[in-house]
Amino acid sequence: MQIADRMHSIQPFHVMALLARARELEATGRSIVHMEIGEPDFVTPRPVIDAGMAALAAGHTHYTPATGLPVLRERIATYYRERYAVDIEPTRVVVTPGASAALQLVMAMLVNPGDRVLMADPGYPCNRNFVYLLNGRPVGLPVGPDSAYQPEPRQVEANWDADTRALLVASPSNPTGTVLDAETLRAYHAITASHGGALVVDEIYHGLTYGVQARTALSVSDDVIVVNSFSKYFGMTGWRLGWLVVPENCVAEIDKLAQNLFLAAPTVAQHAALEAFSEENIAILETRREAFRQRRDFLLPALRELGFEIPVTPQGAFYLYAGCSRFTADSYRFSADLLEQAGVAITPGIDFGANRPAQHVRFAYTTSQENLETGVSRLAEYLRGL
Amino acid sequence: MQIADRMHSIQPFHVMALLARARELEATGRSIVHMEIGEPDFVTPRPVIDAGMAALAAGHTHYTPATGLPVLRERIATYYRERYAVDIEPTRVVVTPGASAALQLVMAMLVNPGDRVLMADPGYPCNRNFVYLLNGRPVGLPVGPDSAYQPEPRQVEANWDADTRALLVASPSNPTGTVLDAETLRAYHAITASHGGALVVDEIYHGLTYGVQARTALSVSDDVIVVNSFSKYFGMTGWRLGWLVVPENCVAEIDKLAQNLFLAAPTVAQHAALEAFSEENIAILETRREAFRQRRDFLLPALRELGFEIPVTPQGAFYLYAGCSRFTADSYRFSADLLEQAGVAITPGIDFGANRPAQHVRFAYTTSQENLETGVSRLAEYLRGL
Repeated sequence: MQIADRMHSIQPFHVMALLARARELEATGRSIVHMEIGEPDFVTPRPVIDAGMAALAAGHTHYTPATGLPVLRERIATYYRERYAVDIEPTRVVVTPGASAALQLVMAMLVNPGDRVLMADPGYPCNRNFVYLLNGRPVGLPVGPDSAYQPEPRQVEANWDADTRALLVASPSNPTGTVLDAETLRAYHAITASHGGALVVDEIYHGLTYGVQARTALSVSDDVIVVNSFSKYFGMTGWRLGWLVVPENCVAEIDKLAQNLFLAAPTVAQHAALEAFSEENIAILETRREAFRQRRDFLLPALRELGFEIPVTPQGAFYLYAGCSRFTADSYRFSADLLEQAGVAITPGIDFGANRPAQHVRFAYTTSQENLETGVSRLAEYLRGL
Repeated sequence: MQIADRMHSIQPFHVMALLARARELEATGRSIVHMEIGEPDFVTPRPVIDAGMAALAAGHTHYTPATGLPVLRERIATYYRERYAVDIEPTRVVVTPGASAALQLVMAMLVNPGDRVLMADPGYPCNRNFVYLLNGRPVGLPVGPDSAYQPEPRQVEANWDADTRALLVASPSNPTGTVLDAETLRAYHAITASHGGALVVDEIYHGLTYGVQARTALSVSDDVIVVNSFSKYFGMTGWRLGWLVVPENCVAEIDKLAQNLFLAAPTVAQHAALEAFSEENIAILETRREAFRQRRDFLLPALRELGFEIPVTPQGAFYLYAGCSRFTADSYRFSADLLEQAGVAITPGIDFGANRPAQHVRFAYTTSQENLETGVSRLAEYLRGL
């Protein structure tokens, strides 16, 4: 069988090989501190689990409409009013099988073969692959601490050409945890609008910010595409549920694609998610957010102390993107050795792009404070032995 | 915003407009008999629902591996041994978020822009759109009653050219419900193998056959790609769970794509599906299969009696694909009028391809015997009035 060309561009997550090795080591009895995992360690809060169980007990096992349960679309729209004071027509909300599906729908709607999509490098690994899927060309904009690891508007403008269809940004971002302010979002929108392109903003880490309230791009314009998810703040990773907010004139296009590509998002997840916005559930989520903040406030100075470079304090998500050039010129090798010799799993920079990946690693604080402390002391000992 | 070219090729399901109109009519108090819906009317059997609830209660809410829970992959492999006496390595089984995701993974692995995929016309509407997504060219092979609505091997051979990558067939097929025999599967495989192409067999209606046992293409060769689902026979539509069986050398490619496109299938669905194969559950499913058979045995002669042409008796799925040229030269208009005037919803041929769609409609027997009887008598009265 012949394999399509895109398969050569699409890479597996390199961290998967490390994760597999970590599981092997654990199977032999070794203790591993996992600081590589991109999902909250917390189980979904009880109110949402109970709502899921109630939905199953009530026999909600059939397909929903491709765009999601109308009542969930309405509830999400209400959430924008409550949390951001932004008015969104519920018809502009499309419920998706995870933010993965949301990103795929958007790229499929926008990208012809050969078309370019601008995105931050480092950035979420799948972003470039959604573009490769469609035989488009992902264009990584190298970003660094000077712009808080977000593309500078002039950089976007300078890289826009006739083949460019969209700018994809994330706030808070993965792997750097930095947040976009309203001014930068407005500047992005002015550029994309002037070129007839799309501004796509990944807001899946919204809710998980510490000391700031992230702005939704929807507060800047109705003419943006926002991707969000129940996975991170709401702690519902395995349920596979996300959503899009799109301009009114894109809804029919997205609906048509969603019908064909996915049929619908999981029904039980949609019913359960109705409970995600309840006061009781939000109170639990806020407690967890505080736990994440405490973890960040422990891990960030500890890593800096050890000699990792983290020049910009991340304000959101649950990641620290750290320069490791004091210890290595090969972050993949460094990560592999750290796992093997110290029992600490982290993600090498190569998963996030081509902008100095060998000089960076990502720490995720998706494990308990106790585990983080163990991880830091193992790391300290390992570095002393270098 | 500019929209990608593929969006002009991808059509929404035309039946959705009829379904929306049906819902409007129902909202005004009208009774509608639904014979357009492509999912079992039965709620998921209780053993599976209970297993889902137990999984939630146990806190199984995190991601699984991209290829699925190892224990579920093993259980599916065992099912092939039990049901078909075919040995499959569990590593060749990839659990997917529905057969939709499975078909998408396969096409993304195989199809470059401009590449051709052969498929039956009439056929499942999404099939051509998975190919359009990738800027490939779906090639509908017109099929009719002489070949039981399945492509003839010589037709496949005659239509294969240097740009052709795959033959996609379905057994039992949607919309015609016909089943492929081992001889035809072998003939297909000989052709695809001789050209270095792929034979992709959609077996999502397996289990729902009446008086025959469908053969899996895996009994013909290991060098085929089989798509299956928990939606139809297992009655788990809204859970969004399916699977692929692929040749050993494709597993890593599919894994890599699944990581990037979907992350993983829904966790609760995977845990619940472990119960799908239990003796207790299969007993329930077999009772339902018998109900479907009885419905078919009622509806088929009733429609023939009324003057619909159904020259080949469907042996599986829950559809009757019926010629309606005695009544109309425009099956879409016929379907719309039937809904409006008689309160019966059916699917017009246009959703299934370009091969005489205006002369055909599809009836689904996914509603109770009582509803089917009401539907047939309304239909009879409507036809008398023409």
